[in-house]
Amino acid sequence: MKISIKELEELTRRAVKKYGYTDEEVQVIADVMLYAQLRDNNQGVVKLIDKGIPKDPQAGEIVIEKETPISARINGKKNHAMLVVGRAVEIVKEKAKKSGFAIAGTFNTNTSSGAIGYYASRLAAEGLIGFAFGRSPQRVAVYGSYEPVFGTNPLAIAIPSDQAPIVLDMSTAATSYFGLVEAQTAGRSIPADFAYDNEGNPTTDPQKAIAGAIRSFDRSYKGSGLALIGEILAGPLVGAAFCGIGDSKGNWGHLIFAIDPELLTERDTLVSHVSEIIHKVKSTKKLPGVDEILMPGEKESRLARQRRESGLIEIEDNLLAELRAVAGEA
Amino acid sequence: MKISIKELEELTRRAVKKYGYTDEEVQVIADVMLYAQLRDNNQGVVKLIDKGIPKDPQAGEIVIEKETPISARINGKKNHAMLVVGRAVEIVKEKAKKSGFAIAGTFNTNTSSGAIGYYASRLAAEGLIGFAFGRSPQRVAVYGSYEPVFGTNPLAIAIPSDQAPIVLDMSTAATSYFGLVEAQTAGRSIPADFAYDNEGNPTTDPQKAIAGAIRSFDRSYKGSGLALIGEILAGPLVGAAFCGIGDSKGNWGHLIFAIDPELLTERDTLVSHVSEIIHKVKSTKKLPGVDEILMPGEKESRLARQRRESGLIEIEDNLLAELRAVAGEA
Repeated sequence: MKISIKELEELTRRAVKKYGYTDEEVQVIADVMLYAQLRDNNQGVVKLIDKGIPKDPQAGEIVIEKETPISARINGKKNHAMLVVGRAVEIVKEKAKKSGFAIAGTFNTNTSSGAIGYYASRLAAEGLIGFAFGRSPQRVAVYGSYEPVFGTNPLAIAIPSDQAPIVLDMSTAATSYFGLVEAQTAGRSIPADFAYDNEGNPTTDPQKAIAGAIRSFDRSYKGSGLALIGEILAGPLVGAAFCGIGDSKGNWGHLIFAIDPELLTERDTLVSHVSEIIHKVKSTKKLPGVDEILMPGEKESRLARQRRESGLIEIEDNLLAELRAVAGEA
Repeated sequence: MKISIKELEELTRRAVKKYGYTDEEVQVIADVMLYAQLRDNNQGVVKLIDKGIPKDPQAGEIVIEKETPISARINGKKNHAMLVVGRAVEIVKEKAKKSGFAIAGTFNTNTSSGAIGYYASRLAAEGLIGFAFGRSPQRVAVYGSYEPVFGTNPLAIAIPSDQAPIVLDMSTAATSYFGLVEAQTAGRSIPADFAYDNEGNPTTDPQKAIAGAIRSFDRSYKGSGLALIGEILAGPLVGAAFCGIGDSKGNWGHLIFAIDPELLTERDTLVSHVSEIIHKVKSTKKLPGVDEILMPGEKESRLARQRRESGLIEIEDNLLAELRAVAGEA
């Protein structure tokens, strides 16, 4: 059903509030979720139904444990990762604007941070080149193996431009874990090159894939290597668990850093060259059946802009009904 | 033929010297080439035969044009990229050791810098997390297109460990341009998913692939997105040409940066956790036909170590004869 974005925002805020968050926290979490929802990213308001996102009763004050003018190590104290990584972005933004570079690592959270591109794009909106890495419980095999040892380890890199920033937001896995669960629920099979069963056979059965391991996005050693790098950068580098070692379920990690292009060039020069690149790349000759060459994040930011302009967004009926129930409107 | 590494080093230095470099420059270039040669990386001493690496008569003093305590923009002044990127590594190393982070961009070079993993691993050897990006003339199509617009854009990330560092050294292309030229020379065909001809058809003919475009390493949008990011980071960010815009052949770029893990954790803690990761990953269950799970760079650094220990290295007879000729021993 099509509803107004205003109504969706209102419902989202109310639902988050029901899970026990303060008004300030509600604002941060709703912002991350609506970024995803407006982009048809599956990290949106669906997170608010079923088990939802009840505030962890153990959650304490977020603590900066180690700090320099260009860095912060942030103990998330079991707060929702969207709050903790959101704090990391604020800190990185402020420090990078002063020093040209900043980095923050977060640990001791136990939820997904949502769409990782959100955090990188927030930095790009400030004229910085933003990097974000996340690590989650092990679901993905290293190249040559069929035993899960890495998370689906998403990464995002965002580059400022004079339009929406370029936002590469990608998981290093062939599919998300959520994608397997969805296929299982819907009784659908999955492509045979997405995952192995727990005996090392390629499988089209999502249930067997869940018991086995997902492959890396390129089904080869480069993607597997990038998954490993993510595992280290958002694992031991930031004080989080890794590869099933440590408190895998209770101690997820994230790494955020930003580079000010002014260190090496002028911001306006970079932005104008990035526009030239966008124009050039989009004008290259298209393969048969291809209507448009898309920049990373372009389709999603266009969709979000169109929805903002129309003020309306389509939400699947069941999801909307459940969201209303959670928000206390049913 | 097997020769002593000592002899290969001597031959390499003498050959480089013949191309017009100073003794100090010879040392730097030979070091990069021998790193590759000891690892069976195709960026080794083969560069010294045929056209070789004559010093550019236009080459002037390398100039730092913009500098902060954490950054340097380096005008390579047409010096060989191995010298210029080598200088960038020295600067990054020194600044990162003081400040916890440093970044250097190089432009105005017109040669390959050789094995990009060399530069990242030099930083890891100092206990830093090293990143290196390179950009070269356009050979690779964006996802959805068959027109070359990106370079084969290699990237390297190196992580310190208590053994050899983990070194992910990868091109973002399905094959190197050199790989196409080799296949053409040998009259071999190439796999049908490596490249398109200049009309957008998949081709197994290396000559048609050279006239067409190479695909990204995953044949999809994520790899294409990473190639684009490399194009920007080692292109306009550092003052180099990009996407065929600007002096593509005369102005290649590189970006080097390093993060000191001490910003977020203790170096020893990171190193010991990386060792745990190596042990854990290598112990995962292997797919049929797989003898060993390899970490990025492991096979290559083991080969180099074994060769150093034996003091001997196998060099293909024709290559050795030509190298001797260049070195003035023929």
